[in-house]
Amino acid sequence: MPDKKNKSINPNYSLKKSRLHPPGYYIEGIGSGNRTILSQAITLIESSHPERRELGEEILEKCLHKSGHSVRIGITGVPGAGKSTFIDAFGKLLINHGKSIAVLTVDPSSSRSKGSILGDKTRMEYLSAHEKAYIRPTAASGTLGGVARKTREAMLLCEAAGFDTIFIETVGVGQSETTVHSMTDFFLLLMIAGAGDELQGIKRGIMEMADLLAINKADGENLQAAEKARREYENALSLLPEQPSGWKPPVQTCSALEETGLNEIYETIETYFNKVKESGYFEQNRKQQAINWMYESIHQKLKEKFYEHPAVQKKIAQTEKLVEQGKLSSFKAASKLITLLDR
Amino acid sequence: MPDKKNKSINPNYSLKKSRLHPPGYYIEGIGSGNRTILSQAITLIESSHPERRELGEEILEKCLHKSGHSVRIGITGVPGAGKSTFIDAFGKLLINHGKSIAVLTVDPSSSRSKGSILGDKTRMEYLSAHEKAYIRPTAASGTLGGVARKTREAMLLCEAAGFDTIFIETVGVGQSETTVHSMTDFFLLLMIAGAGDELQGIKRGIMEMADLLAINKADGENLQAAEKARREYENALSLLPEQPSGWKPPVQTCSALEETGLNEIYETIETYFNKVKESGYFEQNRKQQAINWMYESIHQKLKEKFYEHPAVQKKIAQTEKLVEQGKLSSFKAASKLITLLDR
Repeated sequence: MPDKKNKSINPNYSLKKSRLHPPGYYIEGIGSGNRTILSQAITLIESSHPERRELGEEILEKCLHKSGHSVRIGITGVPGAGKSTFIDAFGKLLINHGKSIAVLTVDPSSSRSKGSILGDKTRMEYLSAHEKAYIRPTAASGTLGGVARKTREAMLLCEAAGFDTIFIETVGVGQSETTVHSMTDFFLLLMIAGAGDELQGIKRGIMEMADLLAINKADGENLQAAEKARREYENALSLLPEQPSGWKPPVQTCSALEETGLNEIYETIETYFNKVKESGYFEQNRKQQAINWMYESIHQKLKEKFYEHPAVQKKIAQTEKLVEQGKLSSFKAASKLITLLDR
Repeated sequence: MPDKKNKSINPNYSLKKSRLHPPGYYIEGIGSGNRTILSQAITLIESSHPERRELGEEILEKCLHKSGHSVRIGITGVPGAGKSTFIDAFGKLLINHGKSIAVLTVDPSSSRSKGSILGDKTRMEYLSAHEKAYIRPTAASGTLGGVARKTREAMLLCEAAGFDTIFIETVGVGQSETTVHSMTDFFLLLMIAGAGDELQGIKRGIMEMADLLAINKADGENLQAAEKARREYENALSLLPEQPSGWKPPVQTCSALEETGLNEIYETIETYFNKVKESGYFEQNRKQQAINWMYESIHQKLKEKFYEHPAVQKKIAQTEKLVEQGKLSSFKAASKLITLLDR
């Protein structure tokens, strides 16, 4: 591979500005499950640099035929419900069942530092040290739409790298749950007991999306409260309209810390997938998700095309200034900038 | 005006497809405070028909120099807090102070029928019958971004029609509060007592945006509970970071039903506006909002341009089908459709 050799002696090489390889390098690396190369490819997809992102897209496109063959599990819950501990313990169980796990995060609210990324990994002690697991928080930048697109693309690359179970965790800030729901097959809502019988700040709309409500920290002195909460949530769920899949979401208790109740959750998820694959809902839902993502991608690309257009880049700061000074309306400014695309 | 006359004998005229007039007709009508014409112009802005919307934009652009001279108040609160009753009673007080009121609604969640629009009006008995008031729920259709843009444009037209106080009500479903906050000068959070000391499903982020927290229904047997809630919310607010305006949001009680506490709220709002106008925050905030709206408008127009492009319209259904059948990836489909713009 002369290209690769040529790049490796590039005098501009530095640790910060990592080198670009030809697409084949990444595609092969991902195909062989090399997680360093997988990480590099995800970084390309996340890049705001057009050249890097284009390379990322090319890699993704060529990996797509290998993706899709996984179980995609969305997980959300109130802060303190123990999402990381749960994913760590449940992931361990899945690995013992012969699965391989990738964990991704949608977090549009924070601008994560390297420190907190490490923090995430440390909280998943078992998974972070296991060769059958891969943990990658999505670098948070830009709008929810942008972050979500990157997470979905990262998911597809993880699938191409051979991971058969994907967890997508959301931090539970408003709309990100809907976004995660729109890219997963199964949506798990993690709760804890002891916060009274109100819904712990979880909105009805999120309850309606859940395929399983798990009450974590059902251990020690908390056992009874967890059982009480289970019954209450069972009542609450029974009042909700039926799921489009026809599935009736159960409420189960577990302790990620003591690793109890996890087998039962595993069985529930298995039952769900058997059911929706048989009924055709699984396939139908993935098709609808693909269509929705086509529109999401269009909107994202329209923005990229606009902001990367040389005439727009030349004029936008100046136009913003005129709007700020009240010399041009927001609307006229937008129209003027848009017409630059046609030149 | 030959044009107008010509239109009025248009044989295609029907009650359902209302006629279009030349821009001057609307601009003059709005300028003279004609609310029928104001309503027609808002309908044009809300239209998904390109020709109508373009006419709407032309009208808006020509009305802009008359807009901006109002006080823009956002209002949100849990269902049952009595938002409509509050706006009705508070609007009455403002009218008695010589003001004129326009009430708009951001409600991306519902597809309102004509029936519920009337319902809204009936709930504001005083305002709906008063010549100094104008009530217009925004027809909900499309994304929050789209709905918000229409509401903001309707607000500017109301200002051009001479209304000096604009209420923008949100139904409180997740992100719509942030949107309303982004187009108003003052944000009022309406609460009620008796729901315990938890935050009634109001998220911290919304508390942080509030310039005033009013506890409604402070009447009869509810008086003591309202006063208790006032103290609790005061404590809660004191823990929040300082507002960018430097304003410390007070907590006040009122009864929209008995029309008590409203004068005090009026005074608070007056104090706020005096303070932020003196400090320069008012002007600075409006400038920043105008810039943000420039970007919102750009994104909206990019989508319109795309979906209205003949080549896209010709191909999009067929492309969607290919994605559904798994013959084309979401990403490649998006790229293919986008390149049609350049032909």
